[in-house]
Amino acid sequence: MSNKKLSTKPYKGVRDFYPEDWMFQKWMFWKMSEVCERFGYQNYNASPLEPSELYEAKSGSEMINNETYNLIDRGDRRVTVRPEMTPTVARMVANRARELPKPIRWYSIPNLFRYERPQKGRLREHYQLNVDIFGSDSIQADIEVIQIGAELMKSLGAQEKDFEILVNNRKIITTLIQQYTDSTEDLYKISKLIDKKKKLTTEEFNSSISEILSERSEEFINTLETTNLENAQEFADKEDIDNTLSIITKLSALGHTNVRFDLTLMRGFDYYTDIVFEFFDTHPDNNRSLFGGGRYNDLLDIFDMEKIPAVGFGMGDVTAKDFLETHGLMPQLTSHTKVYIGALDTSSLAAAETLANNLREESINTELDFSCRKYDKLIQSADKKMVPWFIAVGEDEVASNTYSIKNTITGEQKNSLSIEDIISLVSN
Amino acid sequence: MSNKKLSTKPYKGVRDFYPEDWMFQKWMFWKMSEVCERFGYQNYNASPLEPSELYEAKSGSEMINNETYNLIDRGDRRVTVRPEMTPTVARMVANRARELPKPIRWYSIPNLFRYERPQKGRLREHYQLNVDIFGSDSIQADIEVIQIGAELMKSLGAQEKDFEILVNNRKIITTLIQQYTDSTEDLYKISKLIDKKKKLTTEEFNSSISEILSERSEEFINTLETTNLENAQEFADKEDIDNTLSIITKLSALGHTNVRFDLTLMRGFDYYTDIVFEFFDTHPDNNRSLFGGGRYNDLLDIFDMEKIPAVGFGMGDVTAKDFLETHGLMPQLTSHTKVYIGALDTSSLAAAETLANNLREESINTELDFSCRKYDKLIQSADKKMVPWFIAVGEDEVASNTYSIKNTITGEQKNSLSIEDIISLVSN
Repeated sequence: MSNKKLSTKPYKGVRDFYPEDWMFQKWMFWKMSEVCERFGYQNYNASPLEPSELYEAKSGSEMINNETYNLIDRGDRRVTVRPEMTPTVARMVANRARELPKPIRWYSIPNLFRYERPQKGRLREHYQLNVDIFGSDSIQADIEVIQIGAELMKSLGAQEKDFEILVNNRKIITTLIQQYTDSTEDLYKISKLIDKKKKLTTEEFNSSISEILSERSEEFINTLETTNLENAQEFADKEDIDNTLSIITKLSALGHTNVRFDLTLMRGFDYYTDIVFEFFDTHPDNNRSLFGGGRYNDLLDIFDMEKIPAVGFGMGDVTAKDFLETHGLMPQLTSHTKVYIGALDTSSLAAAETLANNLREESINTELDFSCRKYDKLIQSADKKMVPWFIAVGEDEVASNTYSIKNTITGEQKNSLSIEDIISLVSN
Repeated sequence: MSNKKLSTKPYKGVRDFYPEDWMFQKWMFWKMSEVCERFGYQNYNASPLEPSELYEAKSGSEMINNETYNLIDRGDRRVTVRPEMTPTVARMVANRARELPKPIRWYSIPNLFRYERPQKGRLREHYQLNVDIFGSDSIQADIEVIQIGAELMKSLGAQEKDFEILVNNRKIITTLIQQYTDSTEDLYKISKLIDKKKKLTTEEFNSSISEILSERSEEFINTLETTNLENAQEFADKEDIDNTLSIITKLSALGHTNVRFDLTLMRGFDYYTDIVFEFFDTHPDNNRSLFGGGRYNDLLDIFDMEKIPAVGFGMGDVTAKDFLETHGLMPQLTSHTKVYIGALDTSSLAAAETLANNLREESINTELDFSCRKYDKLIQSADKKMVPWFIAVGEDEVASNTYSIKNTITGEQKNSLSIEDIISLVSN
């Protein structure tokens, strides 16, 4: 044993979840699960350890080396601690592509790991709901996953005015850029700039575009700003526009009227082939992207197999919590323990224990304090642990086999109750 | 993108959890949670990434280097992917030792990682229920955690005859060994041999003991085999014997009559200072340790702080599943999805969707199949996905606004139901 004092802090950038913290996480995970299951999605999971090759196939080795946790095992296998769930779910679907009945509707709430400088909303470990539908190229699938996102926001307490849903089609913006350049390199550069637009000043963005498109840059920027789904017909394919419009119209018919087209929405560079969407916080204190996703029809190519179209989204727990806090929507959670029983002395311990076990048999969550301390100390513990009901057991209770029960929240007390009385009081 | 075909297999020694697998895991986790919460235990969690120093302090660097996954981050911090939860929970308790109301009753079901040769019941990643009580040195605490273990077995469907609970006190066996040697090195060696006794042949064990104790070895081995709690009084402290006996007697009074003293029970070398216990499968096909734990009063020493006594146990998911399978106790789980709605053609899609959303509003989990395939294909998907109710929506249904619903398990069908009829049928 070393003499140097060992730190009690967690590893830098990750969180300890004390019971009150984890209770909130579980509440959020439950909300997420509930909405996904309401749409018939099934919960899957996998190990956070994955072969590094899984990520290199699509993201390139640069991301793997710079942003992820990697190790080499003694069999010389390169292992990555998963930074995102999509490659894993694609791998699992590919592994049973033939047997799984389509469309596959799956969700998961994994923890993901990225090596990055910890900052607000960007920890080294976070949880992320992943919702995906595989095996359908119908826009019904796009609509459904966006609908799930919107229903989830509602389920978390959000109103339509609290957020916007931005929708774009990668093919529309790509067609536009191609009006201005034939070079795939320039297409890539411009797409990347548009993706980062919100993080750049107008000047930075304009001058970068102008470096690529020179005299046509002004026209391009103007088109970017003024294009809606109607005038996009001037350059884009009718089918792409119709699909995008159908999605927005259908969501509106489903009661989600806060959906709008945003030609500049890119959602990063990985995977997405068609529709992309983003839930955006409208609150002035938290004016930012909440979560998003899109269609990725080509991802399973990395496994050298038949195409399986897919659409999905990911919603991070930290961003979701920020949203709840900003909008005053954090839930009031109480302990799962319903009754706290304290023995006042060792001779009353057996009776206290019997009472506790009687309540437990009725599925009433009951904590027994066998420290045999004074009344004040016992009820103080019950209070600190936020347990709503408190019973002290001493000589009198043992003699009469009746008990006083106190509500630690209201302060109300009921006396001379039998065990049956207590069970019926606490169960209601 | 590489041309080499990428594997769809998970990393060696870890598991993919397809929906049916994860459904079982969640069932087991729910059983575990339910029993712990019935005793007032609160759920905590932490990241699987921990500073390597946390493990070296108690386990020594040998274990860390040979049996765990390690990496060095770019801040030159040494990080270990947690192989067990106890150091983490000790760290979290130490971090808030003053504020947390005692006794602290906590549980968690983390995934743990060990670099080892994969074999039955020993994967590189497994889940483990951890139940601990901190801040009480009363034997009531030892009794309570063993009681939780026994209640959990019951909750999983086990009967008393299916398993035994072995109890020992580290102090009793240590006192015995000290009758035979003054050397702490020999004490350690003998303790280690006793811990491995069940994995050695009688010959191997006896000759190893004889190497250490020479002519007194036969007497020692004989004492090991014949000692019960009564005749242990000849060498052990009365208090240690009384405590051990009280635990067994009390558990018996609580209805757990399958508890017995086993002088040779050690439960490894980490942490344990007093009582140790083990749940042991009595089935001839699975005659093995299921799980166990004990009291570890000194662990928080590594944080150079006031002593906090603790007792707890860990129960692995793989061993628990083996037990359920051996004893024919695996649960029959069905899909969380209640209704599968299939549209027969595109013109019926809107009606199918409305029906699905109506059911969802009533919290009925409903999957909508918008692939517009034939009846047989649709019901086949519902069946494969194990969804109990199936509704096809076509021209007739749209015209009449009534539906036929089929139970995919019994084959029973009801016709001409309104949406309200369906809601009331499926909700019951």
